[in-house]
Amino acid sequence: MAKRDVCVIGVGMTKFERCDREFTELCSEAITGALGMAKIEPADFEQAFAGYVNGMSCQGQRALYTMGLGGIPVYNVHSYCSTGSSALHLAYQAIASGMNECVLAFGFEKMTKGPLDSQLTGLKEKYDEEAKKKPPVAARMFGDGGRQHMQLYGTTKEQFAKVSVKNHRHSVNNPRSQYQDACTLEEVLASREVYDPLTLLQCCPTSDGAGAAILCSAEYAAKHGHSNPVKIIGQALTTDFPSDFSDALGWIGVGMTKRAAAKVYEQTGVGPKDVDVIELHDCFSTNELISYEGLQLCEPGQGGRLIDENQVTYGGKWVVNPSGGLLSKGHPLGATGLAQCAELVWQLNGMAEKRQVEGARIALQHNVGLGGACVVTMYRKG
Amino acid sequence: MAKRDVCVIGVGMTKFERCDREFTELCSEAITGALGMAKIEPADFEQAFAGYVNGMSCQGQRALYTMGLGGIPVYNVHSYCSTGSSALHLAYQAIASGMNECVLAFGFEKMTKGPLDSQLTGLKEKYDEEAKKKPPVAARMFGDGGRQHMQLYGTTKEQFAKVSVKNHRHSVNNPRSQYQDACTLEEVLASREVYDPLTLLQCCPTSDGAGAAILCSAEYAAKHGHSNPVKIIGQALTTDFPSDFSDALGWIGVGMTKRAAAKVYEQTGVGPKDVDVIELHDCFSTNELISYEGLQLCEPGQGGRLIDENQVTYGGKWVVNPSGGLLSKGHPLGATGLAQCAELVWQLNGMAEKRQVEGARIALQHNVGLGGACVVTMYRKG
Repeated sequence: MAKRDVCVIGVGMTKFERCDREFTELCSEAITGALGMAKIEPADFEQAFAGYVNGMSCQGQRALYTMGLGGIPVYNVHSYCSTGSSALHLAYQAIASGMNECVLAFGFEKMTKGPLDSQLTGLKEKYDEEAKKKPPVAARMFGDGGRQHMQLYGTTKEQFAKVSVKNHRHSVNNPRSQYQDACTLEEVLASREVYDPLTLLQCCPTSDGAGAAILCSAEYAAKHGHSNPVKIIGQALTTDFPSDFSDALGWIGVGMTKRAAAKVYEQTGVGPKDVDVIELHDCFSTNELISYEGLQLCEPGQGGRLIDENQVTYGGKWVVNPSGGLLSKGHPLGATGLAQCAELVWQLNGMAEKRQVEGARIALQHNVGLGGACVVTMYRKG
Repeated sequence: MAKRDVCVIGVGMTKFERCDREFTELCSEAITGALGMAKIEPADFEQAFAGYVNGMSCQGQRALYTMGLGGIPVYNVHSYCSTGSSALHLAYQAIASGMNECVLAFGFEKMTKGPLDSQLTGLKEKYDEEAKKKPPVAARMFGDGGRQHMQLYGTTKEQFAKVSVKNHRHSVNNPRSQYQDACTLEEVLASREVYDPLTLLQCCPTSDGAGAAILCSAEYAAKHGHSNPVKIIGQALTTDFPSDFSDALGWIGVGMTKRAAAKVYEQTGVGPKDVDVIELHDCFSTNELISYEGLQLCEPGQGGRLIDENQVTYGGKWVVNPSGGLLSKGHPLGATGLAQCAELVWQLNGMAEKRQVEGARIALQHNVGLGGACVVTMYRKG
């Protein structure tokens, strides 16, 4: 399908946090950061792909107009939690196909309590009776998935909680992370229960933020002084819609993840063992562990072992979520896919400072949204 | 930019009307219609582009899953009133670039009173004080544009009203049109004033509906028995965001229309005089007349003359809005761009029954959304 290489020559993101800044200001900061890294003029953008879930139509245009970038084609896309990566995947195709030389993908979200939850009404068949008094729908879905994993494979609450300990520890070195504090296993387990087996420290926080990435052809990159840019060497988007509610693991997107990852491994000829660093969709601790298996880092049921053996942090086989992940860095829906991209491009360029994964050359990104899409992306340097 | 021809081998749409049917049912009807015309299997869709403005995220996935079409990449896009054409333009690029062989574009909307209006809060700088007691924002914007046109060029209320008479007359022959009744100039002028110079019969109604189009390569079309399919020979998307509120004509998108049309004429080497049939964005009568000029059918200020001289109906130079247009057929935001496409593909294939424009070979589509994007598309048969 792809006709040529796609380079990522600039990435940017805001700090993720609850804030009073307008989305236009957040976008401007992220895009300006990406332009600074790319060392190009914004006039070179032939098209722009804007991702966000909440808010009125055409905010993508508005963000660019606020920066003085008017008139170019802008597409506003959304796909719940995989919104940012959906924008990224359209941008990727615009370059890979030979249609464009240089495009912009950006994503943002001003999260307010409730909107995502209140929008998930398609799932009311399952949750109607519980809806008003119970935890957020997403926590219940990923909690149910976690419990099913425990029943099937003997995974423990401690193993899920260790995911959160790891990602909070990683975020200590990420100045753009919403939280930058380490926490102990005891603290994670003792924090307020949200929905069994999830405690508060195992749920991503409510965040505002924006991210951006500039994608271009190898020719364009070379012409603008990027002699050895990071490349996207494979990318796939799969979709799903929850239907069989008796299969909790199924409807939190494991199937989408498996299919997208398998496609990317096939496209690239690069397997999970070749990967050095991973940003994956840890909206809840349970989903990180379950996604190890969907991404084929291990056999089904072996995710707990990877955590216990420290295979997914510095010193292990892979560093998973060096940024702190959604759990600690935050998860502004439309921004998340671009923030994951930014972290991996910084890592492959050796720009990740205190959280640098030494010698990282191949990176994998996993962004999943229920109901929904999963986007898996493989990056390579050199 | 485009690398190869793009064929439209199947189109479909529901009747536009206020109805109790679910959007999934509307989409299914439109897509099934397009599949029937294309004589292909839905499994051939490599990607799908879903357009809608109102409603929760990922309704595109939901619509396809309801039809049993799961797993393929789906992109949910929106751009106010140009949403349908934005989906169409992404589908066009997927084929034109050589990325895909066969893709689906569809769009739908369940309109409820108020949501578009209430979303246009970006314009509150101008309209805040009037907001609660006055007509819908869109009527005020296009009414202001009409009055400016009257002041600049001496255009009359009767000329605007004649647009509505024409489009309602055309719709008599369109069984999918929300209204199918002719009306007189006197009736249009005597209907309730919404916002000077617009009366009720010069405003598009509130509608539900869906539309779909199947785009493919020439090779794919030939392989599936379409020896002489309708082709999209040029398409451009431009954007804008209202800023200078003192220029009413400027911020209802005339600039976007001009730029998009100029690009398409340049891409194709086909000029406005070569065009036989046009579907253009007559959300209000004023905007049809003003858009004649943006599309270069006449010089600025000469739109009224085209109406007076019957140059834009059967027997004239062009037939504009043979479907009845947004004014009579209806305007479910996400569906409109696909419904315009459907009408023109039917016209070029000689399938438009009583409203057939005899000998139509070249068609032009114009879909504009404030704040916003404009998409202009040129179709050719043979």
